[in-house]
Amino acid sequence: MDEFQLIAAMRARFAPPPERVVVGSGDDAAVVRARAFSVTSTDAMVDGVHFRLGVTASAADAGHRALAAALSDLAAMGADPGEAYVVLGIPHGFGDAAALELADAMARLADRHGVALIGGDVTSAPVLTLAVTVVGWADDLSELVRRDGARAGDLVGVTGTLGASGAGLAILDARAEGLQELALRHLRPQPRLREGRALARAGAHAMIDLSDGLASDAGHVARASAASIAIDLDALPLADGVAAVAEQLGVPAWQLAATAGEDYELCVCVAPGDRAAAEAAAALTWIGTVVAGPPQVVLSAGGVRQAASGFHHRL
Amino acid sequence: MDEFQLIAAMRARFAPPPERVVVGSGDDAAVVRARAFSVTSTDAMVDGVHFRLGVTASAADAGHRALAAALSDLAAMGADPGEAYVVLGIPHGFGDAAALELADAMARLADRHGVALIGGDVTSAPVLTLAVTVVGWADDLSELVRRDGARAGDLVGVTGTLGASGAGLAILDARAEGLQELALRHLRPQPRLREGRALARAGAHAMIDLSDGLASDAGHVARASAASIAIDLDALPLADGVAAVAEQLGVPAWQLAATAGEDYELCVCVAPGDRAAAEAAAALTWIGTVVAGPPQVVLSAGGVRQAASGFHHRL
Repeated sequence: MDEFQLIAAMRARFAPPPERVVVGSGDDAAVVRARAFSVTSTDAMVDGVHFRLGVTASAADAGHRALAAALSDLAAMGADPGEAYVVLGIPHGFGDAAALELADAMARLADRHGVALIGGDVTSAPVLTLAVTVVGWADDLSELVRRDGARAGDLVGVTGTLGASGAGLAILDARAEGLQELALRHLRPQPRLREGRALARAGAHAMIDLSDGLASDAGHVARASAASIAIDLDALPLADGVAAVAEQLGVPAWQLAATAGEDYELCVCVAPGDRAAAEAAAALTWIGTVVAGPPQVVLSAGGVRQAASGFHHRL
Repeated sequence: MDEFQLIAAMRARFAPPPERVVVGSGDDAAVVRARAFSVTSTDAMVDGVHFRLGVTASAADAGHRALAAALSDLAAMGADPGEAYVVLGIPHGFGDAAALELADAMARLADRHGVALIGGDVTSAPVLTLAVTVVGWADDLSELVRRDGARAGDLVGVTGTLGASGAGLAILDARAEGLQELALRHLRPQPRLREGRALARAGAHAMIDLSDGLASDAGHVARASAASIAIDLDALPLADGVAAVAEQLGVPAWQLAATAGEDYELCVCVAPGDRAAAEAAAALTWIGTVVAGPPQVVLSAGGVRQAASGFHHRL
């Protein structure tokens, strides 16, 4: 297939756009009927940096992960997901089949969350490169949750289980053996869009998705909110099999859960009075509290405390 | 500078966001007060594909061109430019100075058009890679112009002059000698945002920006509108110095103007009754007409006609 045919074939994989999309693919730009507030995030994944094509990830995995990571940012805001725009940089010899598998994986994830894939650009690139921009919507600012609203006294919770992605990567890298489910959690993370919206409605004060890892991501919340976040590492909800992988790697299990990143669960700060509402909104594990103090994350385990500085890599 | 410091330094180059931006950089996603319709386009430029860093383009040129190309799509829709989100893939050894020059060039272009640079992602990449998503806005669909509205009898016009980018690239590639102004037109194209909005208000039936080249781009309009477009190559407004470069290259001057692409001028189809309004909206040169017939572009010069098929590379 030439480039034109390939793009047409990829586009045919995507569901027809919903009514709110006035102009979809094929014009200079997409036109969408807006709601009051747009919520936009962009994320890139590059072969050799975020995955190793053909070694730790297939083309389909790469497509899924890139879209999932971007959608996870919308989840962390509590936004309703809307549209996705994809830049696909294809290396020489990539092959039509791989491109279509990638498109299929993105289309499946998009369909699951009602996301319209309606624009993009395909180019040559030295290695497989994906840049995904996602747009979500809200009718009112009160529906959205930022990072800067954590207050002393808030409970800190996380959705799902942690450490699966880090353990899964170790398995894919053949640094450890373990459950195939962990590798899948690394390759096919599921953005917590439903949970994010429900937690926002439940009155969450601050929310972030766990992409860099809990220690770093909680640090972003701490800095934005000018508060300290105390996390009890013994309380972290480890995914099944993480402890066994950690043992093979010679690290404590909490390290995979708190620093490996890419679990794409949500970390949320909730007033004690909203605890029941938050628990009704999403399956949460309470792992710490927001306390008055300098903007930092204090990790404790077995009575030992250490400050984690965290880091930041977003524009 | 570490990555965190570099991003902070780049962000400091950007103007503070306007009031419509409720949440700018530094949260999971940007939040913007929307108007009725969003208009979104995404464009990528990759070193070795769209430019040759350090040979034909500086980092600043690459940043300017990537943003200009994306904004040009908004111009072609007649949208008001709003926000830009940038993925920057930085190769090993790129250097902080180059990154800041790139940020400065983007910031200058954004400021000129009132565009808020409010989100993005910085990553490692094998070569300099830019993916820019731009969002524009409209209050009503009638303000926007698509590709599919050209009707038999319409006049076809272009803004500005053509061939400068192709001639400029030949100069930068040392395939020809010529005016430095032509090289600048290649490296620093100016998106026709004001003209696009004015032509939309003047009742334009169809509009497209000249990125692939007039022959291809008019082909997109012809196909979308199910009409034939006849272009008089002798009428093309050649930029100063293009003819001299074409002579050195051994090609007719119209070839640089019609097929080299990347001039980022607008091609517009206007009802004869709106001719005066269109001329008041933008400095135009009339180069052809829309005629009933199969969806194709027919180029004629000196009485010789040929059909140009054009091609398509957008998702």
